[in-house]
Amino acid sequence: MPDQMAIREVAFGKITGVFKRHGAVSIDTPVFELSRETLMGKYGEDSKLIYDLADQGGEILSLRYDLTVPFARFVALHGVGNIKRYHIAKVYRRDQPQMARGRFREFFQCDFDIAGSYPSMVPDAEVLKVLVEILDDLQLGEYEIKLNHRLLLDSMLDIAGVPPQKFRPICSAIDKLDKEPWEVVRAEMVEEKGLPGHVADRIGEFVVLRGQPLELLEKLTEAAHPLAQHPDSAVALEELRTMFGFLQSMGALGPIVFDLSLARGLDYYTGVIYEAVLKGGNVGSIAAGGRYDKLVGMFSGKDVPAVGVSIGIERVFAIMEAQLRLQAEQQAGGTIRETETEALVASIGGGMQPRRMRICSELWASGIKAEFGYKANPKMPDQLGYALKQGIPYMVLFGESEVEAGVVKIKDLDAGTEEVVAEVGRGLDGSPSDAARASMAVFDLLGGTAGNCWTASWLLHSHYHHHCCPLCLQGQLVARMQELVKTKAGRRVVYQQKEEAASS
Amino acid sequence: MPDQMAIREVAFGKITGVFKRHGAVSIDTPVFELSRETLMGKYGEDSKLIYDLADQGGEILSLRYDLTVPFARFVALHGVGNIKRYHIAKVYRRDQPQMARGRFREFFQCDFDIAGSYPSMVPDAEVLKVLVEILDDLQLGEYEIKLNHRLLLDSMLDIAGVPPQKFRPICSAIDKLDKEPWEVVRAEMVEEKGLPGHVADRIGEFVVLRGQPLELLEKLTEAAHPLAQHPDSAVALEELRTMFGFLQSMGALGPIVFDLSLARGLDYYTGVIYEAVLKGGNVGSIAAGGRYDKLVGMFSGKDVPAVGVSIGIERVFAIMEAQLRLQAEQQAGGTIRETETEALVASIGGGMQPRRMRICSELWASGIKAEFGYKANPKMPDQLGYALKQGIPYMVLFGESEVEAGVVKIKDLDAGTEEVVAEVGRGLDGSPSDAARASMAVFDLLGGTAGNCWTASWLLHSHYHHHCCPLCLQGQLVARMQELVKTKAGRRVVYQQKEEAASS
Repeated sequence: MPDQMAIREVAFGKITGVFKRHGAVSIDTPVFELSRETLMGKYGEDSKLIYDLADQGGEILSLRYDLTVPFARFVALHGVGNIKRYHIAKVYRRDQPQMARGRFREFFQCDFDIAGSYPSMVPDAEVLKVLVEILDDLQLGEYEIKLNHRLLLDSMLDIAGVPPQKFRPICSAIDKLDKEPWEVVRAEMVEEKGLPGHVADRIGEFVVLRGQPLELLEKLTEAAHPLAQHPDSAVALEELRTMFGFLQSMGALGPIVFDLSLARGLDYYTGVIYEAVLKGGNVGSIAAGGRYDKLVGMFSGKDVPAVGVSIGIERVFAIMEAQLRLQAEQQAGGTIRETETEALVASIGGGMQPRRMRICSELWASGIKAEFGYKANPKMPDQLGYALKQGIPYMVLFGESEVEAGVVKIKDLDAGTEEVVAEVGRGLDGSPSDAARASMAVFDLLGGTAGNCWTASWLLHSHYHHHCCPLCLQGQLVARMQELVKTKAGRRVVYQQKEEAASS
Repeated sequence: MPDQMAIREVAFGKITGVFKRHGAVSIDTPVFELSRETLMGKYGEDSKLIYDLADQGGEILSLRYDLTVPFARFVALHGVGNIKRYHIAKVYRRDQPQMARGRFREFFQCDFDIAGSYPSMVPDAEVLKVLVEILDDLQLGEYEIKLNHRLLLDSMLDIAGVPPQKFRPICSAIDKLDKEPWEVVRAEMVEEKGLPGHVADRIGEFVVLRGQPLELLEKLTEAAHPLAQHPDSAVALEELRTMFGFLQSMGALGPIVFDLSLARGLDYYTGVIYEAVLKGGNVGSIAAGGRYDKLVGMFSGKDVPAVGVSIGIERVFAIMEAQLRLQAEQQAGGTIRETETEALVASIGGGMQPRRMRICSELWASGIKAEFGYKANPKMPDQLGYALKQGIPYMVLFGESEVEAGVVKIKDLDAGTEEVVAEVGRGLDGSPSDAARASMAVFDLLGGTAGNCWTASWLLHSHYHHHCCPLCLQGQLVARMQELVKTKAGRRVVYQQKEEAASS
């Protein structure tokens, strides 16, 4: 729907703005050039949600499931050594759509990734900084970014006594902790996945650990702590210490919560993992990501380390839409604007269609967003009603008498004021109007230099009501409209009045 | 590839700008919610190019072939009475890709359509005006828009003696006239499609007619002309007279060529049809469209008249890319910039990573596009080389002595000049620096109002080399960088020097 698209544009604009601020390039990977085998083994249990294309002449293709695997394939295919890229595009899942939670079968994702061999945790920290900037810019409400490390998870399972071949299934059970209480997850571990009760209980002691990053890190790195003693988690804790320092330098540590219960489902993560959630809401995660050092190597045999984040933009849209509808209702009794039109060119009397079109064209040529009435002889209340309903801030009006005087009225619909300005310096056939010709003559008399072109117009003012410039034949209308819309330029999505309000 | 994406963004930006100037709303239709039956019967011989999805649980889906049929389905499904919309999205065709001519299996289209019951030819004229504005804005070189009318085509076949059931096959033969000479097309009509030779020759007399719209219209509407006498073409000629008048009012008649040989292949057109081609090139059509009054009714049973145009954006990209590469080669000996980065934050000496990150964060927070070196202790020639290669216009530099003095250098890489400015008012821990604290004290002494915050900084200048504002703790760096990048803001795609140039 058009008003939803207007919101999307605002969100895309903000997100792309952050990506570009960080010097990311944009790449576009194919939607369906991936064979099913390419995608298999990357998504764990979710692989069943991949869409396949029909076999049409020997091509077995699938639709992309996310933007990360196609990116890894791009890096492998083109032998890219390092790249910082963003990609906003649709992905496809054979899922039951859950509109309320922003889950569809085709939906947009906004991804930011950094691939390449760099000093430890530098790109990781920048990816998180990007996420923090985006969530701040989008103003969705209070949020937190839960963060963990794959090696911490694995070490914790190892310490608890889980055999390595059960790491992934147990992780996918832990992954449910944001929706289910510990008892349910414990039951899945013991009853479905065959873990002894005391092993599950040991895991339970770890997954309750969460807190401010530096504080929890302090606790876990105390010499006596089992995670500090395990070789893998010791590496992870050292990486996290480095990263938390970088995040502090970039002012991005605030929203981070170090949370040992976070276990992202996807198989390809190898290092730090994270997930952003809104506080107090029930919309699930709105962004997630982490380090995947082995994924590129699956395609080329040559590992290129990488880290990235994916914004679940449909959920962001849903939240923004709800916010905007509420604001629109409360503040203006209106709805969300669908267009950015700045002026409606309106007329009274018959035979005015070509003139409406011409004036509109002058406005378009000057970059002003304008519409004209499509009816041959539209009624003024209809034109006014349309402008109010669409939330168009200005009307450019004329009737017989204005045409005769070479002027138009500009009506400010917010302020309720009107002003009269000279129209344009050209007749309907595109040649200079009489008034413009007269201006030109005075202009020549004055010596004809750029500085006095407007003086010539002003001298003729009393005779012609025209202030058009004899050099460029640009009337007051265009210049004045440009002035006026500048002040409204900030309002990307504003509210339009409801139809009832307009007709009352 | 990233540089191609940068070009795409410029093209999309210009095209979207025109769509919005005309008050169009944006809608997004699904890529693959269309069953094959929905698409059948709309594309004539091209239907074989439609991609089907595999049957996965009873769903038979196809990928969209264009944006027009999904739009018509949207209008029908939602009972939309009238809408002016644009849509930029990918479509899919099982075609042999012809990269050189911009033909791929998945590619972007940019569509603009107006649906609704309006006075004759008003929306048709606006759609053509939109196309003219886009082609002017894109600056692809000289172009023309070939224009014809479905009823003129049919009347001309009727007059020539073609039986109605052969209208479509004969039209698709005429459609080849832009690639094949008349003899080849005539042979297809006679030998393949069974037309008597004299009937084909009669068609031949019509299809050579082309010229300036008003002139050719004059000729065809002379009382004695067979097309003026045929009831259907008389209607078409009257419509064209109205539309040419509107186009004149909007200053959009110039590039239009009235051409009786134009016969668009798609079955759904009912009125005016057109196709834009670049002069002197061999890239095929870069845009095409027309009126399709019956397509919405195929989905809902209730006709909603509509007219629209589709820009073949991949061909536009190919042309723009070739132009830009040529310009880049000639003017700067460089390549096309992939990012919009305005400043590289660079340092000399070890342990500077957190400070590079913090300074970068200050720039990001002020909307400046910035990058920092990822290496722990990057060498200055490497950092300079990177900035030159990427076409980054400024470097923000510091070493031990700058850190001590609380300043940074801003290096203008185009001009080759350097200036020293105060850095920021915060220490690495985010609290005000000593210099900022001193400023604050003076600020308090001065009475502490907004007007004298900078005076306080200036008073301290000789002691601290700091000009930071004690109120906002914003250093000269950010303010100065904002000033500097404003002057470079116009350059969306600029050229970066080649690597060789940078290292020499």
